[in-house]
Amino acid sequence: MKLNVYAVPDSVSDKDLKDKIVVIIDVLRATSTILAALANGCKEVIPAVEIEEVINMSKNYEKDSFLLCGERNIDAIDGFHLSNSPLEYTADVVAGKTLLMTTTNGTRAIRKAADADEVLLCSMTNVEAVAEYIHNRQKDTVFICAGTDGQFSTDDVVTAGVVISRLAEMVDELELSDLAFVARKIYESSAGDLHGLLKNTLHYKRLIEFGLEKDIEYCLTLNAAPVVAVYKDGVVRTIDNILS
Amino acid sequence: MKLNVYAVPDSVSDKDLKDKIVVIIDVLRATSTILAALANGCKEVIPAVEIEEVINMSKNYEKDSFLLCGERNIDAIDGFHLSNSPLEYTADVVAGKTLLMTTTNGTRAIRKAADADEVLLCSMTNVEAVAEYIHNRQKDTVFICAGTDGQFSTDDVVTAGVVISRLAEMVDELELSDLAFVARKIYESSAGDLHGLLKNTLHYKRLIEFGLEKDIEYCLTLNAAPVVAVYKDGVVRTIDNILS
Repeated sequence: MKLNVYAVPDSVSDKDLKDKIVVIIDVLRATSTILAALANGCKEVIPAVEIEEVINMSKNYEKDSFLLCGERNIDAIDGFHLSNSPLEYTADVVAGKTLLMTTTNGTRAIRKAADADEVLLCSMTNVEAVAEYIHNRQKDTVFICAGTDGQFSTDDVVTAGVVISRLAEMVDELELSDLAFVARKIYESSAGDLHGLLKNTLHYKRLIEFGLEKDIEYCLTLNAAPVVAVYKDGVVRTIDNILS
Repeated sequence: MKLNVYAVPDSVSDKDLKDKIVVIIDVLRATSTILAALANGCKEVIPAVEIEEVINMSKNYEKDSFLLCGERNIDAIDGFHLSNSPLEYTADVVAGKTLLMTTTNGTRAIRKAADADEVLLCSMTNVEAVAEYIHNRQKDTVFICAGTDGQFSTDDVVTAGVVISRLAEMVDELELSDLAFVARKIYESSAGDLHGLLKNTLHYKRLIEFGLEKDIEYCLTLNAAPVVAVYKDGVVRTIDNILS
């Protein structure tokens, strides 16, 4: 089984994704937030790149059936129901709703994989579920990290590293690309101290400056939202919802 | 002092290089080869992107004053004097000559920095000289890795990591980008065993398949060619040659 990691969506071409499982990672915070919402019973999440797009889509939904969600450069968006903090996506707020969401980096990364046939969302909060899914499918996998400001972001790469590390325990024959190898090594060298590893990296520091310690704490909690989230036909749902 | 690392030249914009020292790395093998040639007394190296360009340039030079050098996808180029093996660039072959050179990844990375004002070439073979130069200049520095097939290549990133690790011993206030942090961490976690670290990475394995163990051995020898190589006005020379 071949595993490949891309540090930013822009470096990925469509042919890199052909016949692969594609795993999208934006651990701080978009994929963590979407996974929290799904784990708390929201019906589905529809990622959009632009704010305008979210507002236009909302016209197709009945009042009270949807929520406008997301951020721009960490800040909440005027007039939207929820920001990009996973802690806001509690069951009493999101259960049964369709979430229309745009974020600075994350939703762009998800949309990058729009044409792939098998796309999962991943964060530290569902690494085990993602590793088990890949293990069961026995298929080559590409991890696309959202990155920060279009650049390599350690938080996302090390999240791929956790999944790869788990897969290495389950699968005998893993073939790792260079960045997959580095992702695994960086995670394993941190000896489980993710905060110690990430506290000097850009995205982590930026969220701390915005007072978002609690969001970080949640986003780095392994398996806090243990769902398999599949992006298909423009919509993210849990695999149970798709199969039911 | 800020240090930034880019895994591939394509992710770098001109504004990222403004007022910075730019350090180009293609450890396997272009920068190692150019540094070997300079350490062995060649006059200068002129990097070109295309084979045609090298042949056209050669028409401006007197017979026996120049050598045609380089590779395409590791292979030597028909009709050229030297391939991209640093072991061919001995003093008796290169002393006093102008080398006209093209390689698959390395010369593209060098040309990417054509408009920057202060550009160095770096390999494992001159890490100490590069670290001392940056330390003396006290200036923000950008490392551009050549990459392999347009992708993240661990050999190049870890070479940046060696320089950053040395600088961290010399300078109190270093501000590292995420990839600079990861580069340093990967190097320091390898505990000096570069072959152990790199033997499972793509570029290393590819050179092994081509029977180039001795080239790798040379390219990973720290400070084997301890020169400061500066790229200016399209030409690479040692700093002593430029100042004299």
